[in-house]
Amino acid sequence: MKKLGSQTYSFESDISIISGVSLVGGKEGAGPLKKYFDFVEEDDKMGQKTFEKGERLMFLKTISSAIKKSKVEKDNIDLYLGGDLMNQLVSSNYTASELNIPFVGLYNACATMAESLIVGSIFLDSKGMKNIVCATGSHFSTAERQYRYPLEFGNQRQSYAQWTVTGVGATVVSTEKTSNIKIKMATIGKVTDYGVSDIANMGAAMAPAAMETLVAFFTDTNTTQKDYDLIATGDLGKLGSDIFKDLMMEKGYDIETNYVDCGHMIFNIDQDTLQGGSGAGCSASVFNSYILSKLRSGELKKVLLISTGALMSTTTNQQGDSIPCIAHLVLVEGEN
Amino acid sequence: MKKLGSQTYSFESDISIISGVSLVGGKEGAGPLKKYFDFVEEDDKMGQKTFEKGERLMFLKTISSAIKKSKVEKDNIDLYLGGDLMNQLVSSNYTASELNIPFVGLYNACATMAESLIVGSIFLDSKGMKNIVCATGSHFSTAERQYRYPLEFGNQRQSYAQWTVTGVGATVVSTEKTSNIKIKMATIGKVTDYGVSDIANMGAAMAPAAMETLVAFFTDTNTTQKDYDLIATGDLGKLGSDIFKDLMMEKGYDIETNYVDCGHMIFNIDQDTLQGGSGAGCSASVFNSYILSKLRSGELKKVLLISTGALMSTTTNQQGDSIPCIAHLVLVEGEN
Repeated sequence: MKKLGSQTYSFESDISIISGVSLVGGKEGAGPLKKYFDFVEEDDKMGQKTFEKGERLMFLKTISSAIKKSKVEKDNIDLYLGGDLMNQLVSSNYTASELNIPFVGLYNACATMAESLIVGSIFLDSKGMKNIVCATGSHFSTAERQYRYPLEFGNQRQSYAQWTVTGVGATVVSTEKTSNIKIKMATIGKVTDYGVSDIANMGAAMAPAAMETLVAFFTDTNTTQKDYDLIATGDLGKLGSDIFKDLMMEKGYDIETNYVDCGHMIFNIDQDTLQGGSGAGCSASVFNSYILSKLRSGELKKVLLISTGALMSTTTNQQGDSIPCIAHLVLVEGEN
Repeated sequence: MKKLGSQTYSFESDISIISGVSLVGGKEGAGPLKKYFDFVEEDDKMGQKTFEKGERLMFLKTISSAIKKSKVEKDNIDLYLGGDLMNQLVSSNYTASELNIPFVGLYNACATMAESLIVGSIFLDSKGMKNIVCATGSHFSTAERQYRYPLEFGNQRQSYAQWTVTGVGATVVSTEKTSNIKIKMATIGKVTDYGVSDIANMGAAMAPAAMETLVAFFTDTNTTQKDYDLIATGDLGKLGSDIFKDLMMEKGYDIETNYVDCGHMIFNIDQDTLQGGSGAGCSASVFNSYILSKLRSGELKKVLLISTGALMSTTTNQQGDSIPCIAHLVLVEGEN
């Protein structure tokens, strides 16, 4: 691995994405990306007694399926890397217990998908490991009751709020097997806090972190938006995306033509999700479906995935703190 | 990095621990390891309005001090790696926001110290980074009210319970600068669940994970307890340590003579902590004080640190789940 500038790393090994699997709930499955998802689960409890136990099964199904699709024997998966939005990352922990693969728990909130791809790529680049499964996800009903209100309360949502995606994404990265999709570079984000303290306004809180990471990447690599086919942020939603575009413009980068936000893409406007999707499962499920599919087909060649995370808790919110945020970036290239 | 057996890795780079700093609360500072700690804070709110804000300042003070002691310019610290026991790792997140160093959040509960040293060592071994600060910690008063009962409730504790350590440990690992203390190998743990569901009995829940990781290490490296000066588990406490020793004996390893548990060591028997210390700050503060000091002086040459983590949440406990646990191991050697 080679360091470029202050925060960016380019990988020297040939790191291939050999499989990616996405699973979403019924609402996400009824949205515009419907045909790209591997699994759409209409029962968001997955036949379990609680949403939390259902979420766990979603993780297990997605990860097991990604391993199967990679055609790597489970015993040859060196590591499971990932986390989730539940306190203490319990969806991932209980899944790791079922999988019986060495486990390293990660948490950067909704930036965990890019975080896990970065950590996985660095681990592969240090040679000792050959196959790693990276995964994260979120669940509307478990997140809503953990972070906000009991579902039964039926609270009214602010017009600038977003909707936590029920979805999981899992990616197998490998230096042993090869594919035409490679992870080439990564920028590790710094925690950024512009003082937003309204936990309903995640997009506004996270947009500056996305901007700082993307500007660091452009500076470190001496490139601009013109060098990439697609720039995709994780879950800024419509409002957050607009703020992000404005912030990029202020820095001299006009990203209008090749920029999308996974949260903005995942729902239709008539699905009542206000500013769109959020949650760790948002960029995880969109990356492992739509984005990988377009890279596979050759429609996209150079993609920047920038997963964005808001790092507060209910306690810090109650104690009046503002919301620290982070964004991690990976450069993924399709070779066709 | 080279893979040995199924879960163990040996590092090819010369990875030095160039500084380690420990900070503890007044109770820990009155215990038997008193003289080894860098900072003893009698005010466990650190002058702040809440324990949570105090914990955050403990992190900032410990990490800043470790960076200062390493004599590496802050701008040359490539990465801050770590997590804590607060929901969403907020102590680490807000500290990362103050530090302005690229950040990767980790969580394996009380195994996070060894986890961060492992991830840091692998990152260094992949060359692009030169200096990484690894840190974790815990706080009795924030953990107690988050995981168990409000402090004001004054609940009675089970005889087999432990006491969450108020403490933080930070380590700077480097391939740029050198010291006589090296990280040589690591074993990444699998999540292990023997069915213990009593959250007061952490030692019993975690002991099997420690056993499985240590047996994997011995098998992968073809060594036994006789090849090491000290084997230190993170926070099994007295009861958990006894279970761990029994489990090791069943596997044919008699570790009685060179085994300690950081949780058992950190308090005196008259300090009313029942089975002893627990929490992410337990192995973090003992490793970065007592253990590093003995390695520095040459009294210890080969140390196995096995941090142990219990990966449940209050929600999984309420929903009747058993406690999945993990243990990560690092081999640290003093070269004198």
